[in-house]
Amino acid sequence: MSATPDFEGWSCPLPLRDHPNIVLGHGGGGKLTAELVESLFVPAFRNDVLQRLGDSSVLPALAGRLAYTTDSFVVQPLFFPGGSIGELAVNGTVNDLAMSGATPLYLSAAFILEEGLPVATLGAIVARMAAAAERAGVTIVTGDTKVVDRGHGDGVFINTSGIGLVPEGLDIGPALACPGDVVIVSGTIGDHGMAIMSVREGLEFESLIQSDCAPLSGLVADMLGVSTEIHVLRDATRGGLAAVLNEIAAASGVGISLRERSIPVTPAVASACDLLGMDPMHVANEGKLVAIVARTQAEPILARMREHPLGAQAAIIGEVVDRHPGMVVASTGIGGTRVVAMQIGEQLPRIC
Amino acid sequence: MSATPDFEGWSCPLPLRDHPNIVLGHGGGGKLTAELVESLFVPAFRNDVLQRLGDSSVLPALAGRLAYTTDSFVVQPLFFPGGSIGELAVNGTVNDLAMSGATPLYLSAAFILEEGLPVATLGAIVARMAAAAERAGVTIVTGDTKVVDRGHGDGVFINTSGIGLVPEGLDIGPALACPGDVVIVSGTIGDHGMAIMSVREGLEFESLIQSDCAPLSGLVADMLGVSTEIHVLRDATRGGLAAVLNEIAAASGVGISLRERSIPVTPAVASACDLLGMDPMHVANEGKLVAIVARTQAEPILARMREHPLGAQAAIIGEVVDRHPGMVVASTGIGGTRVVAMQIGEQLPRIC
Repeated sequence: MSATPDFEGWSCPLPLRDHPNIVLGHGGGGKLTAELVESLFVPAFRNDVLQRLGDSSVLPALAGRLAYTTDSFVVQPLFFPGGSIGELAVNGTVNDLAMSGATPLYLSAAFILEEGLPVATLGAIVARMAAAAERAGVTIVTGDTKVVDRGHGDGVFINTSGIGLVPEGLDIGPALACPGDVVIVSGTIGDHGMAIMSVREGLEFESLIQSDCAPLSGLVADMLGVSTEIHVLRDATRGGLAAVLNEIAAASGVGISLRERSIPVTPAVASACDLLGMDPMHVANEGKLVAIVARTQAEPILARMREHPLGAQAAIIGEVVDRHPGMVVASTGIGGTRVVAMQIGEQLPRIC
Repeated sequence: MSATPDFEGWSCPLPLRDHPNIVLGHGGGGKLTAELVESLFVPAFRNDVLQRLGDSSVLPALAGRLAYTTDSFVVQPLFFPGGSIGELAVNGTVNDLAMSGATPLYLSAAFILEEGLPVATLGAIVARMAAAAERAGVTIVTGDTKVVDRGHGDGVFINTSGIGLVPEGLDIGPALACPGDVVIVSGTIGDHGMAIMSVREGLEFESLIQSDCAPLSGLVADMLGVSTEIHVLRDATRGGLAAVLNEIAAASGVGISLRERSIPVTPAVASACDLLGMDPMHVANEGKLVAIVARTQAEPILARMREHPLGAQAAIIGEVVDRHPGMVVASTGIGGTRVVAMQIGEQLPRIC
């Protein structure tokens, strides 16, 4: 008699597992984790690399320099006018890659779920991530899921990291602004932050303000098609336009001089900011970039941006100067001048 | 009169900001975030790429296929015998890359901090991450920090993603186990999970059990130096040895037959598991790998593993069979046979 029984054709006597809400076991690396991966993540993000399900994913060789970035998303509420944490998680990382001039290619997606989260909520977020990835032309090739006990998380936190390919010879970075360069913004500012604010506080202007969450890589590709004399690209997320311009001024050791009236702001955002005593320059965007470009190239780049749906309201808003290095100064509508400082902390926590 | 005042030499009248604990503003993208990055993260992880502080980091061209992975870490407690969330976050991702046969090169590090976390605790974790990265020979090139309000996080969650380079011609993956192959484990199992258990529950065996948290890339390089006929590599983390072997059996459509008495377990882990009614095969490891290798290469690979400090107790524990596909079976110490099932959920939540 053999000591090994015949297991072929054996079937598991366990009842079907049907969990409408996330339980700790979904993060345990056992069957529940496998079910979540196989029934939710893999079908949504379907691609050959992800389906191998190894400890890491092996990608084809990429000829050239790589751009690499990471971002965690903790926005509340999870869904808001114009988007959700799912679109933010994809577009945020796509945009960070695009700001190096890179073509975004591959994303990772890691979830920290709170016990009790409805699986349907996770499913809706994942579906939006998949749609956003398709729109941006990136593939989600590796992932991870952890579950924390109730009261030690907040529904869903998502981390995405991303890899892109930087075209040969291109060098874009926050330290490369030169006096004489022109400052362009790709559209109206403050939309994302005020959209979050409106739903979070239940304010009356709710229906008017939508998040601008969008992938900027296509716009950047169009701009680079006109000229490679783009010295700096930044997406104006947390801290808004003010934080990004201050970082550029500090990194490049230059001053930045803005014409406040040239900065595009929608009437709805302007009046909401006015009502709440906020400055749109400090409010987060999720689909707007700042470009600092050689003066001779500014007009053709601007013209091309305006042909792109995400750059239709692009505008030249100022210039790089050798005065007041490290400082951003704006000429106000009434003929005065003010310092545009970086915020100490934040006006609006957890907007991304 | 010019409308532009002279800002040169101007100094900020703000008081020095000194925060012993994390506040929401540290995640706001303003000056507090910049201070945290410049005074804590950049000095600890010091390298040229990180210091450019762009939206994404640009890496040199890598000639070959890339391995890419992500993992979030939510372990409690943050510090435990043999390691901390910091070492876990680095070694976990290094090991996932190594399991593709890749040489780990670059890591990202993203932090979700809970308001109120002592900055000193974060500093200690970051120092341990930096030391672990140096030991593993990887560079942390990009990062992110978010802060969630008190009661919506749990001290620190860390996500790391990683990029490695896969040697030409190498193909290692969970679906490549063949009947006749030999199953090797690199050392004693269950140490990490029982170390966490011991501190979490305040059990008496506390001083005896240490986490095995370690980077396995050096061991894998040594193994590949002996033979490239390594078909599968997995690190046996969440779900333990049992989960990993079941995943391999399912992915490869083969059976796995183990000799239970050959599986190395320290006496301390064995007795702790016994006491608590746990099976070491289901307990997580953070510095142990399972290798499935061609039979002819098993002895030379094993011999080389035993020369490495992290493989000193490596052992052949079983073989791949064509019987009972998708199933892992162990011959027990008393002459019987049992099915080694995958856990449904988890024995021990939040062990990594």
